[in-house]
Amino acid sequence: MKKFTSVTDVTNINDLVKQALAYKANPFADKQLGAGKRIGMLFLNPSMRTRISTQVAAQNLGMESIVFNIDKEGWALEFAEGAVMNGTTVEHIKDAAPIMSEYFDILCIRTFPSLKNKTDDYSELVLQQFIAHTNIPVVSMESATLHPLQSLADIITITENQTAKKPKVVLTWAPHVKPLPQCVANSFAQWMNAWGEADFVIAHPEGYELDPSFTKGATITHNQDEALKDADFVYVKNWSSYNDYGVASCHDQSWMLTQEKLKLTNEGKVMHCLPVRRNIELSDEILDSESSIVTQQAANRVWSAQTVLSNILKSMN
Amino acid sequence: MKKFTSVTDVTNINDLVKQALAYKANPFADKQLGAGKRIGMLFLNPSMRTRISTQVAAQNLGMESIVFNIDKEGWALEFAEGAVMNGTTVEHIKDAAPIMSEYFDILCIRTFPSLKNKTDDYSELVLQQFIAHTNIPVVSMESATLHPLQSLADIITITENQTAKKPKVVLTWAPHVKPLPQCVANSFAQWMNAWGEADFVIAHPEGYELDPSFTKGATITHNQDEALKDADFVYVKNWSSYNDYGVASCHDQSWMLTQEKLKLTNEGKVMHCLPVRRNIELSDEILDSESSIVTQQAANRVWSAQTVLSNILKSMN
Amino acid sequence: MKKFTSVTDVTNINDLVKQALAYKANPFADKQLGAGKRIGMLFLNPSMRTRISTQVAAQNLGMESIVFNIDKEGWALEFAEGAVMNGTTVEHIKDAAPIMSEYFDILCIRTFPSLKNKTDDYSELVLQQFIAHTNIPVVSMESATLHPLQSLADIITITENQTAKKPKVVLTWAPHVKPLPQCVANSFAQWMNAWGEADFVIAHPEGYELDPSFTKGATITHNQDEALKDADFVYVKNWSSYNDYGVASCHDQSWMLTQEKLKLTNEGKVMHCLPVRRNIELSDEILDSESSIVTQQAANRVWSAQTVLSNILKSMN
Repeated sequence: MKKFTSVTDVTNINDLVKQALAYKANPFADKQLGAGKRIGMLFLNPSMRTRISTQVAAQNLGMESIVFNIDKEGWALEFAEGAVMNGTTVEHIKDAAPIMSEYFDILCIRTFPSLKNKTDDYSELVLQQFIAHTNIPVVSMESATLHPLQSLADIITITENQTAKKPKVVLTWAPHVKPLPQCVANSFAQWMNAWGEADFVIAHPEGYELDPSFTKGATITHNQDEALKDADFVYVKNWSSYNDYGVASCHDQSWMLTQEKLKLTNEGKVMHCLPVRRNIELSDEILDSESSIVTQQAANRVWSAQTVLSNILKSMN
Repeated sequence: MKKFTSVTDVTNINDLVKQALAYKANPFADKQLGAGKRIGMLFLNPSMRTRISTQVAAQNLGMESIVFNIDKEGWALEFAEGAVMNGTTVEHIKDAAPIMSEYFDILCIRTFPSLKNKTDDYSELVLQQFIAHTNIPVVSMESATLHPLQSLADIITITENQTAKKPKVVLTWAPHVKPLPQCVANSFAQWMNAWGEADFVIAHPEGYELDPSFTKGATITHNQDEALKDADFVYVKNWSSYNDYGVASCHDQSWMLTQEKLKLTNEGKVMHCLPVRRNIELSDEILDSESSIVTQQAANRVWSAQTVLSNILKSMN
Repeated sequence: MKKFTSVTDVTNINDLVKQALAYKANPFADKQLGAGKRIGMLFLNPSMRTRISTQVAAQNLGMESIVFNIDKEGWALEFAEGAVMNGTTVEHIKDAAPIMSEYFDILCIRTFPSLKNKTDDYSELVLQQFIAHTNIPVVSMESATLHPLQSLADIITITENQTAKKPKVVLTWAPHVKPLPQCVANSFAQWMNAWGEADFVIAHPEGYELDPSFTKGATITHNQDEALKDADFVYVKNWSSYNDYGVASCHDQSWMLTQEKLKLTNEGKVMHCLPVRRNIELSDEILDSESSIVTQQAANRVWSAQTVLSNILKSMN
């Protein structure tokens, strides 16, 4: 693996899942693999689970990690080609990024969409420029449109909890108080479709259609109840509109998953990438019940990251 | 030791002091003890000495540490049961905390009181919820009402400087420019009373009575001069009112310890947990004199933390 | 080496350059040298390259590093002797600094000038107080007037690219949008003069004369074209006025280096310490060309820091 920014960087999802579960059983199995290697973790946006789980994964592989919160410890980066930098941006990505190749062996980057400029966001302007201007492997710790470390953890979690040979997996939109990126939903759709081992359904209100390049292959419906029927897994997530870009006009609380609705499922397990707004996105009664596997899902972020870093390390040696 | 949040988690204070002094003499004696173990350090409030000394302690024991400033790198946590999270809090403690058990072996937490809601503060709402929702040992790096790592360092420091068999130790209130928590004072009182090897006196202006559950057993006076008489140790500290909760109405500078007042003592050593407001809480002449042992006291924070972490590690193996 | 805050702490620049290039060829040659040693890195101001390169250097030497952003994670320090601390400063340097000696083996500090109080800045008030109140080696990661780790990296980079026996090196002022410190320019001038192995010329607009104590020995001109003639290296850097202290009145864009101007040089290599304001300080066409060696220069920060830390470690053992 030369980089990890999308499911398209992955040859075989099930192989990754298998490796991840092996690491979960034996975290220090490859403690020597990363010796003398250094991971740089750049955050253009806040992160808790991703930051900590990736650091833990790096440590498990014997790597040193250096965290740098560009947004807080550094300064504003410029991404526009030809910019006359007389404003608030202090350094151009073309100057900042190449040096990362000199300091680190692997570069992990977290960035978010603007939710204003769809073209920039969906071309992954920031991530792609980091890739263009470094010559070391780049790992996305969530980008403008995708969150592949999350999606891999999601499939690990589904695999662990799966009883049916081909489970029904539903990604359902949920209300939120502010406009959120489409990344987690896009990415989960992309991975589920690539995985192909589930009956995958997406439910959302009208106007919340995701980018078809990620959802193509899934069953899409505006009827949540219909989607939930016999579901084995229900992935709850808010996202803002892709078409009416970045807008969050729907606050229909009837889309919040409740125990009542969960009865429609096949004792469905409830997933969420966290952080979750309780009693807005998901009710207390679900999160506090046995149906919720959100902690397990978050815990699997370590094994997801460790597997990805391990594959990259192996391709470097 | 299964957790460390109060002197009530300690079996024998003198044993801890003895271990701490052994670590001070030989910092790397247990360099292998923490191998493969990871400490998570969560800060809901700023910290300098506590953060650095705890990291040093963890390193001395061969542990890896991950620091996370929730207040700056993360987002606002929700602590209210049943909250409908449509405001500024982004994640509920019930969702954030369990994951810490998955990422770390020991969880250290720093939080402060609101100084507004006495019930929440004195029930240790935040700390207790972290404890309730994790299943790994929790270490307080200062909580709403106590600061046990500081108090252990304080007793280590007294032990090192002690000449009398039963020294007279005075905790005296000092002025400050803003309302401060009662934690350090509460905790020192609690530990001194539990230790029982000093003649312990607390002096403060009227209205600054501390919670009796911590001070019970101490001699309490409003007469600072009387308290200072023949004192071997003078611990200077401001706190806001416990009764008129969080209020700091007294700015009487005559409570500031001076060299003149120190003459009343038995060549008393002066302690303070730092940071200290010079010439408000304590005069330059004292802090710059041989009477001050504040640097030694702060340095002992390393051995305090190392002893606590070591005992917790031993109980895990 | 007992400290590193200026070229005056260095016995032989070429020896340092030689060591640095040896580390560049073999980063882990002294992986055991720093075992059990701990470096504290205190930032009173933001930093990216300096922070990361110094952490990498410390890791290469087997040292543990602890980063503390005082400005963001801590609180405001007081530096005035005798201050009555009833304002916004929370801790006096006289109390904060000594503890660093207890927690760390080497203390690295980053501070900036006020650009308002020339006396305080040029007496290195902040750095000198850290030195005065600690008893461990202090390394400047940029101070109010100098940036020696940068200058050492600069001479390493010149040495690597040098073809002439005595190259012509030009430090030229460049426009900027805001007033910047004189540190990098002062320091480069100081090191070039101490090195003595280049024909060193400084070009700047009238009113931008640097402190003569650093520039003494250099040829100084207001004619940039004349300075550039036959130059082997062109170091581009903005600084605010030293005489009209901290003022940046000149925004004459004709001082920006362009490819056209570079033709005057002897295929001169272009240097800049970064971050650089593109198309204000330096044109895209230069930064994106083969003439630019800014990435190599930034990469050499690792070997500069590693050499300095290594020499300090050796003097401690």
